Amino acid sequence: MHHKKINHINVKKNIPVSKLIKEMQGAAFGGRRLGEATDILEESLRDKENVMFLGIAGALVPAGMRQILRDMINDGWANVVVTTGANIVHDIMEAYGHSHSRGTERADDVKLREQKIDRIYDVFLPNEAYEDLEKKLHKIFSTMPKKRMGVREFLFELGKKIPDKNSILRTAADKNIPVFCPGIADSAIGFHAWSYMLENELNVDTFLDMNEMMDLTWGAKNSSIFILGGGVPKDFIMQAMQFSPKQHSSAVQITMDRPEHGGLSGAELREGISWGKLSKNSKYCTVVADVTIVLPFIVGALKERGF
Amino acid sequence: MHHKKINHINVKKNIPVSKLIKEMQGAAFGGRRLGEATDILEESLRDKENVMFLGIAGALVPAGMRQILRDMINDGWANVVVTTGANIVHDIMEAYGHSHSRGTERADDVKLREQKIDRIYDVFLPNEAYEDLEKKLHKIFSTMPKKRMGVREFLFELGKKIPDKNSILRTAADKNIPVFCPGIADSAIGFHAWSYMLENELNVDTFLDMNEMMDLTWGAKNSSIFILGGGVPKDFIMQAMQFSPKQHSSAVQITMDRPEHGGLSGAELREGISWGKLSKNSKYCTVVADVTIVLPFIVGALKERGF
Amino acid sequence: MHHKKINHINVKKNIPVSKLIKEMQGAAFGGRRLGEATDILEESLRDKENVMFLGIAGALVPAGMRQILRDMINDGWANVVVTTGANIVHDIMEAYGHSHSRGTERADDVKLREQKIDRIYDVFLPNEAYEDLEKKLHKIFSTMPKKRMGVREFLFELGKKIPDKNSILRTAADKNIPVFCPGIADSAIGFHAWSYMLENELNVDTFLDMNEMMDLTWGAKNSSIFILGGGVPKDFIMQAMQFSPKQHSSAVQITMDRPEHGGLSGAELREGISWGKLSKNSKYCTVVADVTIVLPFIVGALKERGF
Amino acid sequence: MHHKKINHINVKKNIPVSKLIKEMQGAAFGGRRLGEATDILEESLRDKENVMFLGIAGALVPAGMRQILRDMINDGWANVVVTTGANIVHDIMEAYGHSHSRGTERADDVKLREQKIDRIYDVFLPNEAYEDLEKKLHKIFSTMPKKRMGVREFLFELGKKIPDKNSILRTAADKNIPVFCPGIADSAIGFHAWSYMLENELNVDTFLDMNEMMDLTWGAKNSSIFILGGGVPKDFIMQAMQFSPKQHSSAVQITMDRPEHGGLSGAELREGISWGKLSKNSKYCTVVADVTIVLPFIVGALKERGF
Repeated sequence: MHHKKINHINVKKNIPVSKLIKEMQGAAFGGRRLGEATDILEESLRDKENVMFLGIAGALVPAGMRQILRDMINDGWANVVVTTGANIVHDIMEAYGHSHSRGTERADDVKLREQKIDRIYDVFLPNEAYEDLEKKLHKIFSTMPKKRMGVREFLFELGKKIPDKNSILRTAADKNIPVFCPGIADSAIGFHAWSYMLENELNVDTFLDMNEMMDLTWGAKNSSIFILGGGVPKDFIMQAMQFSPKQHSSAVQITMDRPEHGGLSGAELREGISWGKLSKNSKYCTVVADVTIVLPFIVGALKERGF
Repeated sequence: MHHKKINHINVKKNIPVSKLIKEMQGAAFGGRRLGEATDILEESLRDKENVMFLGIAGALVPAGMRQILRDMINDGWANVVVTTGANIVHDIMEAYGHSHSRGTERADDVKLREQKIDRIYDVFLPNEAYEDLEKKLHKIFSTMPKKRMGVREFLFELGKKIPDKNSILRTAADKNIPVFCPGIADSAIGFHAWSYMLENELNVDTFLDMNEMMDLTWGAKNSSIFILGGGVPKDFIMQAMQFSPKQHSSAVQITMDRPEHGGLSGAELREGISWGKLSKNSKYCTVVADVTIVLPFIVGALKERGF
Repeated sequence: MHHKKINHINVKKNIPVSKLIKEMQGAAFGGRRLGEATDILEESLRDKENVMFLGIAGALVPAGMRQILRDMINDGWANVVVTTGANIVHDIMEAYGHSHSRGTERADDVKLREQKIDRIYDVFLPNEAYEDLEKKLHKIFSTMPKKRMGVREFLFELGKKIPDKNSILRTAADKNIPVFCPGIADSAIGFHAWSYMLENELNVDTFLDMNEMMDLTWGAKNSSIFILGGGVPKDFIMQAMQFSPKQHSSAVQITMDRPEHGGLSGAELREGISWGKLSKNSKYCTVVADVTIVLPFIVGALKERGF
Repeated sequence: MHHKKINHINVKKNIPVSKLIKEMQGAAFGGRRLGEATDILEESLRDKENVMFLGIAGALVPAGMRQILRDMINDGWANVVVTTGANIVHDIMEAYGHSHSRGTERADDVKLREQKIDRIYDVFLPNEAYEDLEKKLHKIFSTMPKKRMGVREFLFELGKKIPDKNSILRTAADKNIPVFCPGIADSAIGFHAWSYMLENELNVDTFLDMNEMMDLTWGAKNSSIFILGGGVPKDFIMQAMQFSPKQHSSAVQITMDRPEHGGLSGAELREGISWGKLSKNSKYCTVVADVTIVLPFIVGALKERGF
């Protein structure tokens, strides 16, 4: 067997992010994975016929990743987005001026409750953001088409009305990038849609989305997946290929979840090969890390590489 | 400060499960948490006016937990169920005779693909189960009411037709226990519902469920939550109280997820107090463990305690 | 491929621990591993010519596992013990009446400092235990042979003088079970040995232990390893076979550590095959779990199986 | 309560590493921690009277971190080093031309055994490196002083003889930076020292090190700790202050270990306050991450900040 020597990482002063990640790629363990993942993503971005499916799970908007995600969509890095409802909720809140704040995970939650501050680990959010969200959403809902829509179309209609060019949802609408959210009922949008429907008409059918998702997967010459976290977005993006004659061509996941207890979030990507979700010839890489730690570096490296 | 002495666990021969867990409760770390969680659940079960919300995430049916979950519903331990779509899919497959098998996580996924075997960590499932599922589901869909239904009602109609008294979904229907599944579109049921709707009528509105979920939370004198894993079920059960004047009275979660990267699955339960999801007077306990390791022991202990 | 069906776990009322673990073994993921690990240990215990190496890492004595560990040694389940220094320190403290207490991990450490209480996650210990330990140890040291000793012999001399038949160290001395502690300098014993040596004679050479460790590994017809946690005990037990023509015959580890970042604690056991530490024909099993959650159940099951 | 707004991270093209980490510091979760940790380290390096204790656990030399660690010592970033034996062993191997290679964690360990290749996750090492190590070490041992030495002094004598200016141990000797290794007996050095002592004289007493360690902690005006991984190095560095009237002034740890099961490796740093190991006024930060992913970025940022 001939193996490549481990190159001990050399951190020269002012080394650019991309070059530092290349150094790490020549080493081992998580650092090597980070380098491999960046290369897989680079290759996907270079392929003009590739369709990139971006999965967004975890509290990434409260985490301060909103601009990064918005830019990925705006710059054409993501051709299809699958997200949790929460990230859309928090994106819209920011659009209406409700900022998340740096708090502490050591806070007294009883006191926070008295102050009407919601906690997400070390992030604080005034609960009034939810009250305002209801008003804003109801107003937008009233302008929407009355026809039966899938969630994708519903989110497109919603995105068009968000008055903030830095919004993820608005940017996706502007760029005509489909945003799927199969679990939208499990979010404040789902709640406020329901409260709206008590007296008004709104007709959203989550099953309808499968149409477009099938078209997207069947129609793609090559497709890649980039999963931030895991959850429903990972499952939905991978499952789309289960019922298709094609498979995804490459895959990158960043997650802290483990495989041993059998949940999909932490499952090895190669498992997807057995299901026909991922091509047996695919390149794939899981980086075991907090998205908020590694995504900024990956994005920095890819920008240096010309994207 | 007066603290109780750590009692060093004494494992006498033939010690019953419940007594062993009590021993662990007198000690520290995870073992102590297991004891505390069991006590919180016991207290919830003793309270006849308590409404127990059971959240089921992870691949628990493939994992061999189907009988346990079915019995919890049949024996009145769960009054409301919130689950991922996958657990319903695999429950129905088993109902139609498609067994999961003990494989190995070291398998070659390319070979499994050739043999049309799907892998879930160390569990194998012939892919034909999905083809058969489509036929069975389409047949049942054709007997369903044509009216607009929430997912809860849709799953009730589905559950009634499952020809296996050991099915989770069938048992819930028989016992009239509501089963919610906000992310159902992200499952083979969602896919097959869509393929059915291409030529037939079926009208499921995920937002409608909020009605009943609100009634259940507002109507409960006391409510408890028992979360297996995390994911959408955890979020949906907790969120139900966010828009209610009440809070859940007690909470137990078993998960391997971590809190530091901010995802809800691994979030500390006490965070829910700040949101008004969990009462500031609540008892709550997170057991950091694989559900497949600790749930059987918890159930065994609770049965010994008379439930 | 013929695979065994997943048997859905059936938790009958009053099911004994061993039978419940057997049920779990017929299922998947962590529960299955727990069953397999118990079987491997059972097989090792049945083999009268097998030498069992027990590795003890983590704060298992503060955790309330002292009686279990002591009984494992007393009942002949462990033929060689490798431990961290801390577990010996806390074992001796308990022998002298210094109890650990159930505190809370949410405590204010600044206040604890004022009260001279040391915290180990949710365990509290009055700092005075360390002061008393110094007196007791110095007294024992003064009765020890002046010759050059390995740590194993030093701990044997120490164990003989511990006035508590429930002490792990005392029991090992009584039963003539060797206790190794390669990292003893990193413990309060190391500190107090040093303070003693400032004015007195004591001659401990950690390298000397290799002699006996080699004899134990070379001399064993079969040998098994049971690792609680990871750390130095895991490394020392595995390494003992690296420089021997033999290999360990079977291996069980319980740990929460992960493999992906390359540390030995979380490394897959099969890695040891490449090194010649573990036989290529060995049975091995890692249970990803908190020792304080699963060890009591394993011990309970093995006792039911006649050990 | 007034909280600082989360600043959504803006990754401009060619953003320097330090600036990107500053962006992350204005956000949340792990990214924020990375920023805080870098600031704490920066402050320690700025303080000329500060003594920096560097703890090195995990397989960091096989991981390709040798140059980084060597440079940290050479550039005066570390004033005291505490390491596992393994990192010294692999450092010396590299000094003698035995390279580690990039392999794969999916390898067949039985085949690797046949090829005499040792595996450390995805790193391969020919086993002959251990045979050569014995020869080289025995030769160096024969030139050493015959007097009783602590491990620190023993490693200094060893370091002086390593014929590679890029060696961690050699660099520490050249710069007169003390290297402690309380668990040295648990390493190939321990084994080869023992085999040497079978026919030759060598006198190493691990307890002697406490002398210097005490001087270093008592003598430091301010002291900081930087823990890579956890294990014995973390314990030894923290414990040094337990028996001192002083406390460490600041602390940074990078680890993937968890706190809930009570092991020291994953323990929250603030626990050290209760023990008097860490000052109640200290700044401290744990970054939950793989060292091989984040250390290169931290080092890059600190270099940009002028160190």
